[in-house]
Amino acid sequence: MPEDHANSWEARAAAHSFYGFTDLPSVRERGTVVVTHGEGAYVVDTHGRRYLDANSGLWNMVAGFDHPGLAAAAKAQYDRFPGYHAFFGRMSDQTVMLSERLAALAPFNDAKVFYTNSGSEANDTLVKMLWFLARAEGQPARRKILTRKNAYHGVTAVSASMTGKPYNEVFGLPLDGFIHLTCPHYWREGRPGESEAQFTRRLAEELDEVITREGPETIAAFVAEPVMGAGGVIPPSEGYFQAIQPILKRHGIPLVSDEVICGFGRTGEVWGADALGFTPDAIIASKALTAGYFPMGAVILGPELADRLQVAVDAIEEFPHGFTASGHPVGCAVALKAIEVILDGADGAAPLIDNVRRMTPVFEAGMARLAQHPHIGEWRGRGLMGALEAVADKDSGTPFAGHLSVSERIANTCTDLGLICRPLGQAVVLCPPFILDDGQMDEMFGKLETALERVFAEVAG
Amino acid sequence: MPEDHANSWEARAAAHSFYGFTDLPSVRERGTVVVTHGEGAYVVDTHGRRYLDANSGLWNMVAGFDHPGLAAAAKAQYDRFPGYHAFFGRMSDQTVMLSERLAALAPFNDAKVFYTNSGSEANDTLVKMLWFLARAEGQPARRKILTRKNAYHGVTAVSASMTGKPYNEVFGLPLDGFIHLTCPHYWREGRPGESEAQFTRRLAEELDEVITREGPETIAAFVAEPVMGAGGVIPPSEGYFQAIQPILKRHGIPLVSDEVICGFGRTGEVWGADALGFTPDAIIASKALTAGYFPMGAVILGPELADRLQVAVDAIEEFPHGFTASGHPVGCAVALKAIEVILDGADGAAPLIDNVRRMTPVFEAGMARLAQHPHIGEWRGRGLMGALEAVADKDSGTPFAGHLSVSERIANTCTDLGLICRPLGQAVVLCPPFILDDGQMDEMFGKLETALERVFAEVAG
Repeated sequence: MPEDHANSWEARAAAHSFYGFTDLPSVRERGTVVVTHGEGAYVVDTHGRRYLDANSGLWNMVAGFDHPGLAAAAKAQYDRFPGYHAFFGRMSDQTVMLSERLAALAPFNDAKVFYTNSGSEANDTLVKMLWFLARAEGQPARRKILTRKNAYHGVTAVSASMTGKPYNEVFGLPLDGFIHLTCPHYWREGRPGESEAQFTRRLAEELDEVITREGPETIAAFVAEPVMGAGGVIPPSEGYFQAIQPILKRHGIPLVSDEVICGFGRTGEVWGADALGFTPDAIIASKALTAGYFPMGAVILGPELADRLQVAVDAIEEFPHGFTASGHPVGCAVALKAIEVILDGADGAAPLIDNVRRMTPVFEAGMARLAQHPHIGEWRGRGLMGALEAVADKDSGTPFAGHLSVSERIANTCTDLGLICRPLGQAVVLCPPFILDDGQMDEMFGKLETALERVFAEVAG
Repeated sequence: MPEDHANSWEARAAAHSFYGFTDLPSVRERGTVVVTHGEGAYVVDTHGRRYLDANSGLWNMVAGFDHPGLAAAAKAQYDRFPGYHAFFGRMSDQTVMLSERLAALAPFNDAKVFYTNSGSEANDTLVKMLWFLARAEGQPARRKILTRKNAYHGVTAVSASMTGKPYNEVFGLPLDGFIHLTCPHYWREGRPGESEAQFTRRLAEELDEVITREGPETIAAFVAEPVMGAGGVIPPSEGYFQAIQPILKRHGIPLVSDEVICGFGRTGEVWGADALGFTPDAIIASKALTAGYFPMGAVILGPELADRLQVAVDAIEEFPHGFTASGHPVGCAVALKAIEVILDGADGAAPLIDNVRRMTPVFEAGMARLAQHPHIGEWRGRGLMGALEAVADKDSGTPFAGHLSVSERIANTCTDLGLICRPLGQAVVLCPPFILDDGQMDEMFGKLETALERVFAEVAG
């Protein structure tokens, strides 16, 4: 730790933090980075060091770290009405307005909205809704949830069970009834000689077989991120959703799009489902919904699920579920502004989604250039998110030995250079804010290239 | 619905809301109350109607609905740093400072803090921590969680499983391994001829028997609200925690205090555990932590659990859990201010907890007066929260027939009179903001008395 006197920020952070999603050897060696403020796409720590945050915080701070319009919207609502709930037939006017906006944006008509404080809570709520519906419709066995390996859907016990990451084994998760199908990552999962079209077909057949094996009457939903995010930015193989959706429809299983990362512009479209060309039965939203300026999640139900759930609830007169801060007026005011900033353009500025579309080819060119490195196995991505996969051997795609912690070393070297990017498995993930300009794009790729060269020189000799 | 034209606020609210914790017959008949702003302890709807909110929102808006100091703290932080996370060894300075403050307030030394966005997420996180610890310590069977009937711990699938309410049956909950003991409500659960001391002893013996029957090595924790909140404001019988804590200690089972409602002053003490005279092994906090001005929850680990968890995490180098907005800088800045406002006094004002203590005898006198009504079976409470239990027959404690919806009628009549209170079972719950003054106390009890008389005249003839 660079400064270990007891009143340093590093020591103060360590004293009372139980760290989550943190590489403890790194934080012990390097100290906690205590961040005080931000400037556009940059954050600044207690030592005055500036970092270009190519993570957008956690995929969410898409408008940067000091957006005046978003701060103004939050501040105006704090002056007007700083908190309320949405229980007992009461809710704030901001909540009503946000639901109208989300319903208008949804890729289906007659949407109904249920608010939560996070994507985790939204996925957990979705599962409770489906379990409730199953029992109400006389099919109490219809409780299984299908997701994919490498999918990330959150960290509550249920949303972690949906998440297809091996690390959840330390909790004794997943719970029973959460089934993880093959990750639709052609580069990693494709078999020798298998074309991408054949791979897609194999995954569709797997889905059909699993449904038949488990019994379609036991399956409540298939939930998928259009482009997997925390699995390592994995767009599905060509034609994936077009191949699986008819199978789900045939078996009467809803397709739910987890848009926590893709939603509100990350792919260059409003929804990742738009970008991937499918219409889901419900949407899970969070993150860019408030541009990270307030904790919020939402379940946006399509008309069929909304109607069936309403019939089921009417029979018992009350849906016994909801979070204290569901539909918080400040969060709703911030979300209304974030949607305006991203999709409409606010206060004379162009919509941020225009910049996502403009910068995507620049981003793709930068990724393609770095992917020529002999220790980068592939680059992949969609819109303003992407991953570079480090490999020991490019031809075979063989990863580096785990003890080398290659991606952590790359990320730590980037941090030293003033760039924040994220190690995920042996990939390095970039998901810059939607406000990124050309100079910052150059800075991001320049620093990452320096870090890659340094680390590969160390680990690959 | 009073105004059913399509652009009324009532119609707009109904169009896209999937209502949670809402009596649908009431909202269909009366329309959604769309709230635009607040003034002290009052909220105001789109028709300009003012309501004294004797719910404090949802137990949480303890400083009222337009506290200038809290709004100023939020606004200042929005100008300074409007959002960040606490992953990857980075966090905001506000997060560090709040952890220090919470550790100093905790009823044990060397606390470690883990942030969430809600009490539900905090309880869900606690369970994941305990499941993780059990496996790491070579006791993978230690997964069962003991709580009590009528306990409320949240709505994620796991925290709803902890909640001891029959309504969770509609979801097929609780999950396996969540065991609900007898509610420590002497008036309702005491047997004929059983003294309160005997009742407490019986519940302690039940706990010992359940632990022995299930096997102490299968039980991860006992989690309890010091005073049950959403179960209907139920203080435990005399000596309850003193009777059960030695049994838990003997079996090596942690006692976790769910302080989501009691914490930060509601009982007149900082923690409900202080008021009830016990020292827990960990604390779950939310609600008044930010006075409802931001969604936040926290798991505050006592030293033994923190140390054991740290040893377990060190072995795998990372605790794979955390929420995107965990430790949000605006939430932390708001919480720091809320704690100051409640416990220290801010900006020249006295600490709000002083007013809780000053008003508690006035509140108790008002409750005792209404409890003399022939259709009130008992009043109960602690500090500034209480419940009046409606009964068809006072001597036997027989409730009214369920179809009469007595408590909903009382609450709806109160709403018509400009008072918000909460129906819970057949009780009416009051938990006014900590800022309540004598005039508002009179208004609250006066309106409630009018409503009680009207409704009892209707239902009891």
